[in-house]
Amino acid sequence: MTPDRLRARYWIETAFPLEDAAETMAGEQSTGTFTRVYGETDELRERHAARVEQMVEKESASSPSLPGAGKPKNGPAVYRRAEVTLSWPLANMGVSLPNVLATVAGNLFELQPFSGLRLLDITFPAAFLDRYRGPQFGVAGTRRLCGVEGRPLIGTIIKPSVGLSAEATGELVACLAEGGIDFIKDDELQANGPHCPFTERLEAVMRAINKHADKTGKKVMYAANITGELDEMLERQARVRALGGTCAMVSLNSVGLPALHALRNVSEVAIHGHRNGWGIYSRSPAIGMSYVAYQKFWRLAGVDHMHVNGLKNKFCESDESVMESARECLTPMFAIAGRGCEIMPVFSSGQSAKQAPDTFRALGSADLIFACGGGIMAHPDGVGAGVRSLRQAWEAALTGAPLEEYARTRPELRLALEKFAGR
Amino acid sequence: MTPDRLRARYWIETAFPLEDAAETMAGEQSTGTFTRVYGETDELRERHAARVEQMVEKESASSPSLPGAGKPKNGPAVYRRAEVTLSWPLANMGVSLPNVLATVAGNLFELQPFSGLRLLDITFPAAFLDRYRGPQFGVAGTRRLCGVEGRPLIGTIIKPSVGLSAEATGELVACLAEGGIDFIKDDELQANGPHCPFTERLEAVMRAINKHADKTGKKVMYAANITGELDEMLERQARVRALGGTCAMVSLNSVGLPALHALRNVSEVAIHGHRNGWGIYSRSPAIGMSYVAYQKFWRLAGVDHMHVNGLKNKFCESDESVMESARECLTPMFAIAGRGCEIMPVFSSGQSAKQAPDTFRALGSADLIFACGGGIMAHPDGVGAGVRSLRQAWEAALTGAPLEEYARTRPELRLALEKFAGR
Repeated sequence: MTPDRLRARYWIETAFPLEDAAETMAGEQSTGTFTRVYGETDELRERHAARVEQMVEKESASSPSLPGAGKPKNGPAVYRRAEVTLSWPLANMGVSLPNVLATVAGNLFELQPFSGLRLLDITFPAAFLDRYRGPQFGVAGTRRLCGVEGRPLIGTIIKPSVGLSAEATGELVACLAEGGIDFIKDDELQANGPHCPFTERLEAVMRAINKHADKTGKKVMYAANITGELDEMLERQARVRALGGTCAMVSLNSVGLPALHALRNVSEVAIHGHRNGWGIYSRSPAIGMSYVAYQKFWRLAGVDHMHVNGLKNKFCESDESVMESARECLTPMFAIAGRGCEIMPVFSSGQSAKQAPDTFRALGSADLIFACGGGIMAHPDGVGAGVRSLRQAWEAALTGAPLEEYARTRPELRLALEKFAGR
Repeated sequence: MTPDRLRARYWIETAFPLEDAAETMAGEQSTGTFTRVYGETDELRERHAARVEQMVEKESASSPSLPGAGKPKNGPAVYRRAEVTLSWPLANMGVSLPNVLATVAGNLFELQPFSGLRLLDITFPAAFLDRYRGPQFGVAGTRRLCGVEGRPLIGTIIKPSVGLSAEATGELVACLAEGGIDFIKDDELQANGPHCPFTERLEAVMRAINKHADKTGKKVMYAANITGELDEMLERQARVRALGGTCAMVSLNSVGLPALHALRNVSEVAIHGHRNGWGIYSRSPAIGMSYVAYQKFWRLAGVDHMHVNGLKNKFCESDESVMESARECLTPMFAIAGRGCEIMPVFSSGQSAKQAPDTFRALGSADLIFACGGGIMAHPDGVGAGVRSLRQAWEAALTGAPLEEYARTRPELRLALEKFAGR
């Protein structure tokens, strides 16, 4: 393989011979169309055609995973599955994330030979790092902004998700800061609704955070949800910075790669990436995209944190899948020291003190944001006790102390374990 | 229903009581989380909670469509299906397409009670039209730019998809213009690769188009693929305009709503929306989004043309689905005269002279772009004959003349029907 080729690995399912099906993908996503045209010379194919680099056959199925696919006339009704790696010359799409996406995840999910097709992974040549630069803060920068080392950032999501006024949000943040929280984010449903305008909310929240910082020296990181049109996002980022804020959140699927990249180019704060809508890409095993591939686009474009769900979450995702995603965020994308684009995985969704030890054991790292909404807000003794229960749970996790035992002398943790036992 | 509520209709599948499942969706996407928190007062719920407006039960299934969903303990293994309509107060998300997307298509596809969940439709309050304005050119504006009335725009896609030099592309465009084409688009794989830089290609193409226009008065519409980072897209749009071009193409899923909206705000040319990657949203019947819902976001954001696939296409989509999509593009989104945001449906994918009569019969309108790549480029007598075969096919379609009969005295059409008979 020459280093300037882009590679992508897929899971495919087809009733046609695997080699033919793979060639159809390669043809359709490079020089070909449904019929040979005059200009598609051998020389042009040699220079620009995508290549099938590897194919590993997997178990077959007797029925198609998805409807609508074609099958050979009089052919056997066997649906063969394989992992296929394609490669493209970089000259086809250039060093451009939007155009890479149109190439590796464009018009191929619908191709007739396939009753299933998923993008599993992608390998970007180093030229992408030169142009896109990746996360500005990443793991180390986020820790520096928060002043937290050696343990996860304990975080929360403003709850109720939507409906609090700016003033009430500021009061809640003051409580949370008082309780010792490291990180607070808006819910993804809360951006700039007329009942809680972004500017008012930001001002109320930053007043509370700055007041706490003046008193204690600890600056809580607030991921203000700046999701909106691009001019709004840029203006809101500047406003966050002007008020001393250190982070801005965007709903990635709502804003798209170019807007994220434009934000990264001017942002002076960490960018917190929320993946809501991710279920469209992930829920069906037969279509879509793996998180491994998905997060690489956003990391290159400049995100600093990305959501990975959490253990025993309120969604459908398995614990194995969650941990694979989290590990991937911490895995270098490029073998260049200090330029691997590692980002903070954000554990969120039904999280509470309970999951801390298993999360640490499975990840093997304390580089993460552990965000609990209800897991803090619904603590029987209030949000301050909720935060303390999390700090205690992570002390136990990091020192290897059994959680129940550690809770005996720590009432906040004990109450949290009781409250959330049923989940 | 008060007019300032946003409504969305879903298809759901669940092993839980339908009412409970629908309430979970509504709660999760508005005021709720997995446990009741202090701030979620009755008054706050009254003002901000999403409401279940309607539920129509459909046939049940004995096994789940998607893996990973929960089911009631000791409950019956029946997966009930329904169409559910939810509504939200506009105060929750404001008049903001990215935030609407995070609300109606955010963290709900993964909710544990659901073994299937698809967004079927969305109804935007008129406030969105005031802010977003929708397509700048739409159907009438596109016709005006092309000087074509009373019949479809006959179009083509530059093929080979990728690999031609700028010079060779210009030569091909000269041939196509000579042949009488109305509309030419770049392939979505061809944007600004180093072997065929955007600027060089645009210059070569516009030279050919302008020369033809000077000679004949007919200005061919060229949808130049400007997909890239936002600054690039804006600069390329300006360049298209400066050279007398009338259209720019973007890969919608690659650029996202805010970048499309930013482009619309300054564009002086029609915006041609390519939906590559659409299979991720559409291939599984149990997850994703209908084209009906999908295209409304892009129309509001300002797209003028959108791809709908074509009859007997090379993909998996059924003819019924294709025609439903095309009709939707021509259906007003708002009941305000002249402001319905209608756009040109673009038929493309394995199209040739063969499909013209059925397409016209099924759509009941000539307001469409009929784009044939191989269907023109692979014509045995060359691209000029390919274009003429399409013009003839549409004459037959519009006058109701049987295609085979019409072809008897028209050799270009006859050869096209022979060449593409196997498909």
